[in-house]
Amino acid sequence: MNMKDKFAAIANIIDVRLATVFKSAFESDRHPLFHVVPPLEINTELKALTLRGGKRLRPALMVAAYELFNDEALDDCALLDAACAMEALQSYFLIHDDIMDGDTVRRNGPSVHASLQQKTGDAALGLHLGILAGDLAAALHEWILARLDCDAAIRTRVQRIFSRMHMDVVLGQALDLQGNASPEDIVLRKTASYTTIGPLCLGAALGGATDSDLAHMAELARPLGIAFQYRDDLIGVFGDEKVAGKPVGSDLKNGKQTLLLTDTLAHLEAANRAALLSLIEAAPQSSDAVTGAMEIIDRSGARARCEHRIDKLFSTVAAHLQTLAAREPGKSFLLWLARLMAYREM
Amino acid sequence: MNMKDKFAAIANIIDVRLATVFKSAFESDRHPLFHVVPPLEINTELKALTLRGGKRLRPALMVAAYELFNDEALDDCALLDAACAMEALQSYFLIHDDIMDGDTVRRNGPSVHASLQQKTGDAALGLHLGILAGDLAAALHEWILARLDCDAAIRTRVQRIFSRMHMDVVLGQALDLQGNASPEDIVLRKTASYTTIGPLCLGAALGGATDSDLAHMAELARPLGIAFQYRDDLIGVFGDEKVAGKPVGSDLKNGKQTLLLTDTLAHLEAANRAALLSLIEAAPQSSDAVTGAMEIIDRSGARARCEHRIDKLFSTVAAHLQTLAAREPGKSFLLWLARLMAYREM
Repeated sequence: MNMKDKFAAIANIIDVRLATVFKSAFESDRHPLFHVVPPLEINTELKALTLRGGKRLRPALMVAAYELFNDEALDDCALLDAACAMEALQSYFLIHDDIMDGDTVRRNGPSVHASLQQKTGDAALGLHLGILAGDLAAALHEWILARLDCDAAIRTRVQRIFSRMHMDVVLGQALDLQGNASPEDIVLRKTASYTTIGPLCLGAALGGATDSDLAHMAELARPLGIAFQYRDDLIGVFGDEKVAGKPVGSDLKNGKQTLLLTDTLAHLEAANRAALLSLIEAAPQSSDAVTGAMEIIDRSGARARCEHRIDKLFSTVAAHLQTLAAREPGKSFLLWLARLMAYREM
Repeated sequence: MNMKDKFAAIANIIDVRLATVFKSAFESDRHPLFHVVPPLEINTELKALTLRGGKRLRPALMVAAYELFNDEALDDCALLDAACAMEALQSYFLIHDDIMDGDTVRRNGPSVHASLQQKTGDAALGLHLGILAGDLAAALHEWILARLDCDAAIRTRVQRIFSRMHMDVVLGQALDLQGNASPEDIVLRKTASYTTIGPLCLGAALGGATDSDLAHMAELARPLGIAFQYRDDLIGVFGDEKVAGKPVGSDLKNGKQTLLLTDTLAHLEAANRAALLSLIEAAPQSSDAVTGAMEIIDRSGARARCEHRIDKLFSTVAAHLQTLAAREPGKSFLLWLARLMAYREM
């Protein structure tokens, strides 16, 4: 199987398994001690967002990391369940993030709180149900992990990694909102933690890696996570709406402190800087302002510098992977995924 | 040791242990794979709320349930850690609930989002950081559980109970916001789940109880949870501000669909009903309106009916406990705690 087909096959397996998880957790699982409530709006919304795609990059990274240390990743139910828990955790982060960023579009559909606001016709109620839909995703990830069927020592490792991701992302997001840290620091905590570090360490742990192996995985995962975010920033400004899953320029109109924007602002003289900031301020209302801001960012050289930074980060990842005493096909698949993350199409 | 001293001793042990947990999780634990962020406002707020008391009722229930099946509960680190995870989970629920209810006071201090709004001088930022402070509490409970040191089978049980509580409370709160279920049904899911069912099942599981024992615990826990909520409703309207930890009449001014209010409205004729509803509407601004509403509720007989319902529920719990083939001192302590929960002072 070529890499692209393998990636698609993993996404497919996870999609099917996630649908089963939703059925078990919310419909068929009658726990003798507790009372599970029949389908509510928040269940429907969470399920819709989670099953509406996403690239399933994290599950693919988990498979690749597993295959660095072990065979037959896709036959290991614990790995597949952990990948589902990972996707549930991501839904939780996305739902709460969209509330904080005021984003109304996600994965080519309405964001969860926006949909709930529209359905209830009540902005406050929709927002509160949105918070709860995120909380439900957090509960779902815990529910899946509590049922993980694997060796006790591996399970402990897996749960510690999950709890660390959870904590890191929340603290990273707080750091971002409070704006008192360097952009790459924020990216490490808020994005790399659960996009590359967590998935690679989880896959490796489930494949039987030792603690020292995990430290190597984390080292390789950090530059990859940052490269992923640079690419995400480029897509968020210059990318196609369909690829981004949200409107072009949405990062601009939210005035998001992206790596790209930070670099741009650092390299502009005062006049252009003021022009860019005022265009960004006008961006939510005007598509001309979005185009104008894009041009200034491009002309500032920031776009090229981001591409260069991605090249350097990707080289670091590839070199690290080269020296890793690990198995095929994990190495090739991980290299392919790393390239995809760093250079995915816009 | 008498019961009151025992209860106080447990609260004390949990307070000390929680302080240590905060230190480990946020200060001294340098995880090799992740990056934990230095103290942020949300850490400070979460710690302040969690350590600012609360009665530590849930830990006490866990100890009592443990002692139904085993000795020396307070020497079992896993029980104490699970009790800390329980308190972190409660902080998470309280923080998000206060956001949804617009409550600005909690445990005789500012609610977390209100404090963050005040500190940042920015209503939206404070709200968003409040959501994150709740999420951080959820992450902390996961962090504690991932480090639980006990038999693998017990650990699995404990984690399943936690994940069920988590899910039940979130779904119960959504049910409450959407207002399409009976009040006692909502109370079972939203309150009894994590106030009595979860803690009693957790304590029992950690003490070595079987699945059939756990089913008994849940049966006993349900009426106790409802009695607790009736008492809470009475305190929320007629109680002392110091005991409630929030302003007198706050349930009234929020127009909360409590068991007490539902009963009252069901037993009033149209004229008094309209009068009560308009007083409740005016309550946030006027203390006369609060007093007026309290009088109508009292005169409707609802207060007496709630007391009677509590008596019946407590009798059910006591009778169930009587027939339980379980150990002392667990039985006596649990009976004492049940009485405290049903009849605590106002």
